[in-house]
Amino acid sequence: MLNKFGELFSFSTFGESHGKAIGVIIDGVPAGLKIDEEFIQSELDRRKPGGKYTSKRNESDKVEFLSGIFEGISTGTPIGAMIYNQDQKSKDYTNIKDVFRPSHGDFTYFNKYGIRDYRGGGRSSARETASRVIAGGVAKLILKEFGIKIQSGLYSVSDILSENIDFDFAKTSDIYGLDEKIEKKQIEKIEEARKSHDSLGGSVLIKASNMIKNLGEPMYYKLDGLIGEAMMGLNGVKAVEIGSGINGSKMLGSIHNDPIRKDGFTSNNSGGILAGISNGEDVDIIVHFKPTPSIFKEQSTIDSHNNEIDFKLKGRHDPCIAIRGSIVCESMLASILCDLLLINTSRTMKNLINCYGV
Amino acid sequence: MLNKFGELFSFSTFGESHGKAIGVIIDGVPAGLKIDEEFIQSELDRRKPGGKYTSKRNESDKVEFLSGIFEGISTGTPIGAMIYNQDQKSKDYTNIKDVFRPSHGDFTYFNKYGIRDYRGGGRSSARETASRVIAGGVAKLILKEFGIKIQSGLYSVSDILSENIDFDFAKTSDIYGLDEKIEKKQIEKIEEARKSHDSLGGSVLIKASNMIKNLGEPMYYKLDGLIGEAMMGLNGVKAVEIGSGINGSKMLGSIHNDPIRKDGFTSNNSGGILAGISNGEDVDIIVHFKPTPSIFKEQSTIDSHNNEIDFKLKGRHDPCIAIRGSIVCESMLASILCDLLLINTSRTMKNLINCYGV
Amino acid sequence: MLNKFGELFSFSTFGESHGKAIGVIIDGVPAGLKIDEEFIQSELDRRKPGGKYTSKRNESDKVEFLSGIFEGISTGTPIGAMIYNQDQKSKDYTNIKDVFRPSHGDFTYFNKYGIRDYRGGGRSSARETASRVIAGGVAKLILKEFGIKIQSGLYSVSDILSENIDFDFAKTSDIYGLDEKIEKKQIEKIEEARKSHDSLGGSVLIKASNMIKNLGEPMYYKLDGLIGEAMMGLNGVKAVEIGSGINGSKMLGSIHNDPIRKDGFTSNNSGGILAGISNGEDVDIIVHFKPTPSIFKEQSTIDSHNNEIDFKLKGRHDPCIAIRGSIVCESMLASILCDLLLINTSRTMKNLINCYGV
Amino acid sequence: MLNKFGELFSFSTFGESHGKAIGVIIDGVPAGLKIDEEFIQSELDRRKPGGKYTSKRNESDKVEFLSGIFEGISTGTPIGAMIYNQDQKSKDYTNIKDVFRPSHGDFTYFNKYGIRDYRGGGRSSARETASRVIAGGVAKLILKEFGIKIQSGLYSVSDILSENIDFDFAKTSDIYGLDEKIEKKQIEKIEEARKSHDSLGGSVLIKASNMIKNLGEPMYYKLDGLIGEAMMGLNGVKAVEIGSGINGSKMLGSIHNDPIRKDGFTSNNSGGILAGISNGEDVDIIVHFKPTPSIFKEQSTIDSHNNEIDFKLKGRHDPCIAIRGSIVCESMLASILCDLLLINTSRTMKNLINCYGV
Repeated sequence: MLNKFGELFSFSTFGESHGKAIGVIIDGVPAGLKIDEEFIQSELDRRKPGGKYTSKRNESDKVEFLSGIFEGISTGTPIGAMIYNQDQKSKDYTNIKDVFRPSHGDFTYFNKYGIRDYRGGGRSSARETASRVIAGGVAKLILKEFGIKIQSGLYSVSDILSENIDFDFAKTSDIYGLDEKIEKKQIEKIEEARKSHDSLGGSVLIKASNMIKNLGEPMYYKLDGLIGEAMMGLNGVKAVEIGSGINGSKMLGSIHNDPIRKDGFTSNNSGGILAGISNGEDVDIIVHFKPTPSIFKEQSTIDSHNNEIDFKLKGRHDPCIAIRGSIVCESMLASILCDLLLINTSRTMKNLINCYGV
Repeated sequence: MLNKFGELFSFSTFGESHGKAIGVIIDGVPAGLKIDEEFIQSELDRRKPGGKYTSKRNESDKVEFLSGIFEGISTGTPIGAMIYNQDQKSKDYTNIKDVFRPSHGDFTYFNKYGIRDYRGGGRSSARETASRVIAGGVAKLILKEFGIKIQSGLYSVSDILSENIDFDFAKTSDIYGLDEKIEKKQIEKIEEARKSHDSLGGSVLIKASNMIKNLGEPMYYKLDGLIGEAMMGLNGVKAVEIGSGINGSKMLGSIHNDPIRKDGFTSNNSGGILAGISNGEDVDIIVHFKPTPSIFKEQSTIDSHNNEIDFKLKGRHDPCIAIRGSIVCESMLASILCDLLLINTSRTMKNLINCYGV
Repeated sequence: MLNKFGELFSFSTFGESHGKAIGVIIDGVPAGLKIDEEFIQSELDRRKPGGKYTSKRNESDKVEFLSGIFEGISTGTPIGAMIYNQDQKSKDYTNIKDVFRPSHGDFTYFNKYGIRDYRGGGRSSARETASRVIAGGVAKLILKEFGIKIQSGLYSVSDILSENIDFDFAKTSDIYGLDEKIEKKQIEKIEEARKSHDSLGGSVLIKASNMIKNLGEPMYYKLDGLIGEAMMGLNGVKAVEIGSGINGSKMLGSIHNDPIRKDGFTSNNSGGILAGISNGEDVDIIVHFKPTPSIFKEQSTIDSHNNEIDFKLKGRHDPCIAIRGSIVCESMLASILCDLLLINTSRTMKNLINCYGV
Repeated sequence: MLNKFGELFSFSTFGESHGKAIGVIIDGVPAGLKIDEEFIQSELDRRKPGGKYTSKRNESDKVEFLSGIFEGISTGTPIGAMIYNQDQKSKDYTNIKDVFRPSHGDFTYFNKYGIRDYRGGGRSSARETASRVIAGGVAKLILKEFGIKIQSGLYSVSDILSENIDFDFAKTSDIYGLDEKIEKKQIEKIEEARKSHDSLGGSVLIKASNMIKNLGEPMYYKLDGLIGEAMMGLNGVKAVEIGSGINGSKMLGSIHNDPIRKDGFTSNNSGGILAGISNGEDVDIIVHFKPTPSIFKEQSTIDSHNNEIDFKLKGRHDPCIAIRGSIVCESMLASILCDLLLINTSRTMKNLINCYGV
C-alpha cells in the first residue's frame, strides 16, 4: 500500500521533485508483451513541463528501462524504470524554506513527518506523476491487444466549457483542448490569469472506448470505486464524475435508466459501469482540478515556527494544472483497466479452463 | 481485496439480499475498546428499510456479534457479526427471473459470472451495506476516543438543495434532511415521484469534525483518494466532491487558496485535506446518487436469452436511495479515518518511540 | 492481512474456541463451481475432535453455508460459512483463569493485548483450523477440476517413523498413520504418553500429485515460500521440510541435482519446486509438530499478576496434535495451490488471450 | 504481492542478474530515522561475491540512494536504491543459452513465462538478494533504536556442524563460520568439493536477541509464519527450523514446555515465539540450503526444444550458497521484525493513546 497502486498489475513509485531521480517498479506485466519504448516516451512527452502554458521547468524526462524486458519483450519480471532529475534548481526554493504555501502539501507533510523538504514540494510535487505515466503507458500496450482505447483532453478552463469533444484536435492543441472553437477562449483565460500572477481551475474529460465487458470486482474493487480513488488521489482534484455525474442526482429514474437492446444500451448515463462492472459501453469520466495553489500574489500564511507572515512566491508553475493532468488521468485509468482485466481471468471456472486448456 | 475494505482496520463482507444471512468480519480492531452494541444497533436502525420514504421490506436487522469481544471489551481478534435475513420474499422476483432491469447490476453480474441470481439483486443489492454500517459503527467507537465526530444528512433531492446545514435536525427528519425549511419540499418531490411510479436522485453531505491532523498516506493511500473510492463504490453514486468540489475548478487560485493563521485556516476550500493528508479542518464531502434504477413504469430491456422485451417491475424499492445512503457514507468515512489513524502510528520514529516508551 | 490468508483465492476467519461460533469468508471462488457440501463436511469430520486418540471435546462441527452458492453452484461472490460452538464448557477453564500455561499462547496473547480470554485458548486455540478446512475443501474442489490431488498422513510419532507411505491406509487409520506396520507402535507410544499425563511430538507428510506446472510467483509469492508460511504458522509447528529437506543440506550437488529427461525429472529432491515455481513433479512436504503443550503434570509458571506458581492442568487435550494436524496441512496446501492457479492465469499474454478468446 | 515483501515496512525489488541494474523501493520507513549509508554498504559487502570461497564474479555492489532521505534523515517517503551491474559477462552464458541447468530455475521460468533469459539465471539469480540486504539494513537501523540485535553465521557445511556458537568469530571468518574449532574442517570440505567440480549444502543459524515482546499478528501474519515464508522463499532453501525445530517433534511435552518464571523462561524450545507472537526470548532459526545447483560435472538435462543432452557447465559459482546466505537470512528477519514492530503499534487502544498522547 502507501506508495503502490494496483493488485495484479501494479506499480510502486519513488522519488522527490528535486532529488536525484524518480522511478517506478511495474509489477505483474504479463510475459510476452512487446514493449514499445518509443510509445512510452511519447506519453511522457505529453506530460513533461516546458510547454507554452505549463511550468517552465526544463526536464527532458527521458525514461531508462532497467529490467523486465529481454530483446524488446516483457519477461514477466518487474519492469524497473527511472528518470534522472536534471533541473534541480533547489535554490529557487530557499526563499520558501520555512514557509507553508497555502493550499499546498507543505503544511501537512511537515506536520505528519516532522521534516521540511522544501525543495519543490518534495514527494508531494506533481513530478511523481511521470512515474504513473510510464506505468500507464505499459498498461495501454496491454489494453491495445484487446482493442481498448483511452483518450482525454481538457474539458473546461474555469467556467469555459468545451461544447464539442474532439480527441484528435486535443492531441494537437497546446492545452490539450477538446473543442477547436472554444480552445482560444480557454487560452485567453489562462493568459489572463498568468498575467495577473494568478492560477485557474479546470476539468479533464477521459473516455475509454471499445471496452471489454466484465471488468470490475464487487464489492471493494469496483471499476467506479477505483476510478474514484485514482482520480481523487491526484494532486489538486476536488471532484470526480462518472457518466451522468452530478446531473444524475437531479434526474428522474425513468430518464436516467439506460434502456437495453440486443446490440447494447441506447443511452449511457451509467458511464459504462453497472454495479462496479463494465457493461461494454464507453467509460466516461470528468475530473475537476482546483486552481494551482502556487500563485505569485501576496498571501497570508505561517512558517514552520508558527509565525504568521505574508509572502510572495517565486518560481515556475503551471497556471492550470488540469492541462497536464489529462495524460495522468489517462494513465491511471489504463492501469486500473489493466489490473481488472488480469483479475477477471480468474473469476469464473470457464475462464480458468479456457486459460489452462483443460 | 475483492470483498475486503481497508488495511489495518479492515472489514470483509459476505451475503446476498435474499440468502440466509449477511455478515462481516471486522479485523484490526485494537484490543481494549468498549464495544457499545446498542450504539451499533442504533446505527443499523438508521439504515434499515421500512421507513416512511424508504423500501417497505420488513427487516429487523438485529446484529449478532459472534467473536472478538470478551466481557464487553474488544480482544484484538476479529469481530464476526451477522444478520439473518428475515423477509426473503423471493417470490417477488420470479417475474424478473430472466429480465435485466435497466441500470441495475443484473446485466453485468450475469455477463461476468454467467449466473443469474435473480433474488433481489443478489450480492449487488444495497442490503450488503448493513455490513458496512456495523463496521463503521465499530470505527466510530474508536474515533470517539480521539474526539473525531462524523455527521451527515440528505443535502439535495433532485434539484432541491438544502440551504442551512443542521445535523441535529437531520437526526429527527424522516428523510434525514439537513434543512428544516427545505425538508417539506424535498418530501413532496419524493412523494410526487413515488406516485408516478418513478424515482429520484439526490445527494448527501458528510462532515468529519474535530479532526486529527496527519491522517492519510501518500501517494496511493491518500485520505481523499480513499474517500473517492469508498463513496464512488457505493451503489448508485455518480459523483463525489470534497471541499470546494466542482466549484473549485471554476475558481481563481487567489480565491481558492486557504490562508493559514496560527490557529488554523481561515477558509476551507480544501475540505480538510492537503496532498492527501488531513490538515485539522473539517472534512467536507458531497456524494451524488443517481435515481433508484428500480421504477414501476414500463421499460425496454432484454432477457438473459437476449430477447428484447418491455416490462414493468413490481416490488418494494426506495424512491430515493440517497436517503438511506447517508448513514452508509458516514460508515465508510469512519472506516477510512480509523484505518488511517492506525496506520499513522507507524509513520514517524517519534510515534513509534511514544508507543513503545523507549 | 492479520486474519486473512491468500490473495485471489483467499479466506478470512473469525471466532474463538469458546465463543458463540467460528466462521470463514472464502473470497475469490470462481463462479460456476459445483459446491459439494458433503465433501466439505467429510473433510471437517477428519479434523473434528472426539476421536480415540484426540481431544474428548464433543463437537459435531456441522458447517452451515450462508452465501455465495446458488442452486449448488458458486456465484463468484464470497462464500460465508459458520460452525456454532456446542461444547463451550468454559467452566473447565476457571482453574486456569489467571495462569499462563507453559509453551502456550496464553502468555503472549495477554502481553500483546492486555486481555486474558482464558476460555480454552480463545483465538489461539486449534479450533480455528476448522475454518481453514472449510476453505481448503473448497480449494480442493477447484483443484480437482485440474486433476491435482492432495494427500497426507501421520509420518512420525516421537522417534517412530513410517517406513512405507500408504495414503489409502492413512484414511482408515485412527491416527492417520501412513504405515500399517508401524502404526501400532506409534499408537502404543501415544497411549504410553497419555497414561503418564504427558504429550508427544510428531510429523506429518503431505503430497500434491498430478501437479500442474508454473504455479508460484517470484520473488515474494513463491510456492515454497507460501508453504513455509502456511505450515510454520500452524499451532505447534517448529520445522518444515520440502523435498530433500534437512538432508539436502548434507548432500553434494552432483547427487542432489535432479536430472531432466524428456518425460520429466528422474529424481525429486526439489520436491516439485524450482525457484519457487512448480515443475510438474509431486510436491513433498514434511511438517514437524512439537508435543501438545497442554499436559497434566505439575508445571512451573506464573499467573497474570506475575506470581510464580506450580499447577496441574485439567481438561481435554490431544496427546499428539500432529494427528489432527494432517488434514489442516492438506487444507493449507490446497488453498495455496488454488490461489497460485488463479494468479498464474494473468502472467502471460498467451494465457490472457486464451482466456478472453481475442 | 509478486515482487513485494512486507506490509507496513515493505520493499519491492526489480532487476536481473545480467540486466542494467538491480534495485529496491523501501516503503514505510518511519520519518526521522538517521540513515547510516556506510552501515548499509557494509552489509552489502558481507553479501557480495568475489570472496575466497564464493563466486568469482566481480561486483563492487555500491548502493546509490535516490530518494526518501533528506540531509541524512528519512523523510517518510519511499527510499529508492539501486546498484548498477558491472560484470555482466553474458558471453559466459551463451553455451547454456538453450539448456536447462538441473535443479535450477531455468526450467520453471521458461515453462511459466515462455521466455528464456539465459543470462545468469535472469531474475531467479541470487543476485536479487542484494536488494534484500539494502532493505534489511534499513530495517536493522530501526530495530537498533529499540535495542534488537540480529546475528548469524554458517552453522553446518555438509555434515560438519558447529559446536560452539560465536557470532563475533563469524564476522572474521571467510565463510562466516560460527565455531573457530570447526571452521577449518568446514573449509576443507568446501575446497574438496570445489576441486571435484562439485558443490555442497549447508545451514545457517540466525538469532535475534534483546527481543521486544508482542511482535506477530495472529492468525495469518504470525512471526513464525513470516519467518517460514521468508526463509523458505530464498533460493536453495529446503528446510527451516525454529527453536527446538525437528528435534521438537521427538520430545515429550513435559520436556519441551518452557517453564515460566518472573524473569522470563527457563528454557527456549519455543525459539522466542508462542502462538506466532514474540515472548521476549531470543528468536532462534536454522535455515538449510541445498548444494548449489551449478556444478561443473557432466549432467543430464534437456534443452528448450526438449532434446535430451549431456552438458558441463562453465562459469563462476559459489560452491556452498549457505555462506553468502547468512547475511540474506539476517536481512529478511530484520525486515519481518521491523514490519511487525510497526503493525503492533496499532493493536491496542493503549498503544494508540500513547502514540497520539490523547
